[in-house]
Amino acid sequence: MAASPILDELIAALRCLPGVGPRSAQRMAWHLLQRDRKGASRLTQALERSLAQLRHCERCNGFSEEDVCALCANPRRDASRLCVVETPADLAMIEQTQTYDGLYYVLMGRLSPLDGIGPRELGLDRLLARAGDGEVKEVILATNFTNEGEVTAHTLAALLSARALVVSRLSRGVPVGGELENTDIGTIAQALAERRALS
Amino acid sequence: MAASPILDELIAALRCLPGVGPRSAQRMAWHLLQRDRKGASRLTQALERSLAQLRHCERCNGFSEEDVCALCANPRRDASRLCVVETPADLAMIEQTQTYDGLYYVLMGRLSPLDGIGPRELGLDRLLARAGDGEVKEVILATNFTNEGEVTAHTLAALLSARALVVSRLSRGVPVGGELENTDIGTIAQALAERRALS
Repeated sequence: MAASPILDELIAALRCLPGVGPRSAQRMAWHLLQRDRKGASRLTQALERSLAQLRHCERCNGFSEEDVCALCANPRRDASRLCVVETPADLAMIEQTQTYDGLYYVLMGRLSPLDGIGPRELGLDRLLARAGDGEVKEVILATNFTNEGEVTAHTLAALLSARALVVSRLSRGVPVGGELENTDIGTIAQALAERRALS
Repeated sequence: MAASPILDELIAALRCLPGVGPRSAQRMAWHLLQRDRKGASRLTQALERSLAQLRHCERCNGFSEEDVCALCANPRRDASRLCVVETPADLAMIEQTQTYDGLYYVLMGRLSPLDGIGPRELGLDRLLARAGDGEVKEVILATNFTNEGEVTAHTLAALLSARALVVSRLSRGVPVGGELENTDIGTIAQALAERRALS
């Protein structure tokens, strides 16, 4: 595409999106310019507004237009429980279950020493301060069950253990609707080790 | 993500990108806002400039900042050959071979009656006018070898046959480096039917 430096720059800029390689970027640029110019200008505006107006909620660290987001400001949420998640997407998944009415703390990442993300970079002190507000009684660790998510959960559990708080973790096991035949061995081993007595 | 309408709108806007579903859009929004704000503002600017400044080259119909793109304006390109491709990405692929020094015509799509894209929607009359400029001696049909690309090539061949032009098509066959064992049967059948005499 030597024909246009502007198009080259658009293709290069699209590659800052996660999971977008040179081919996808080229296809996206073509699609936006040829098929969906309205979508392209909508995206431009949405990016501009988001960059200008979104900040971190003072309480949950999620993205918010206000100092405190609507969820944290909602008086009907149970302030005694604090669910710790890695990303806003994880928060959204838990909200979709409609089974949790406590509050959240969004880490905006996970511990990843290999990438230089330690407790300080992740701002764990802010979470500790948040959990120590006197109202929180239970901290539910809902980081992912990846290696990094587990390390993050273990580190947080250790940091929180000194306080008079219940610290819990999402259960591991066979997914709902899952067949043992199609479940990985590690998960089955966990489900066996953490089996529940049926009362 | 009920916490922020602005974030919701960004996620919705990202979905105008081809191949991006709700999950990817959410991950992209998070990545842009949390990890790569510089990339996000670069993308904003690139989109803005592209929408404002890119138009179709008068000769090849590709994207260009000028009325005639650099490739079409290059006097060292052989104006007697015109290669017809579906998209700018296809043009880029052929340029990367460094084996073609003729000119191009970019259809910006393909015939697709089911989607309501017929000869008129695709602007085939402009291609016919371009091919009839007196300088063009050969039209090389390099549309894809998909059903729609083949239909487009056949239609163009029929439209161009009335003129004193050589009309050719990219050859089909086993890919370079390909093993017969791993090549699909249709391709092998084509390669057999269109076998070349070794002189």
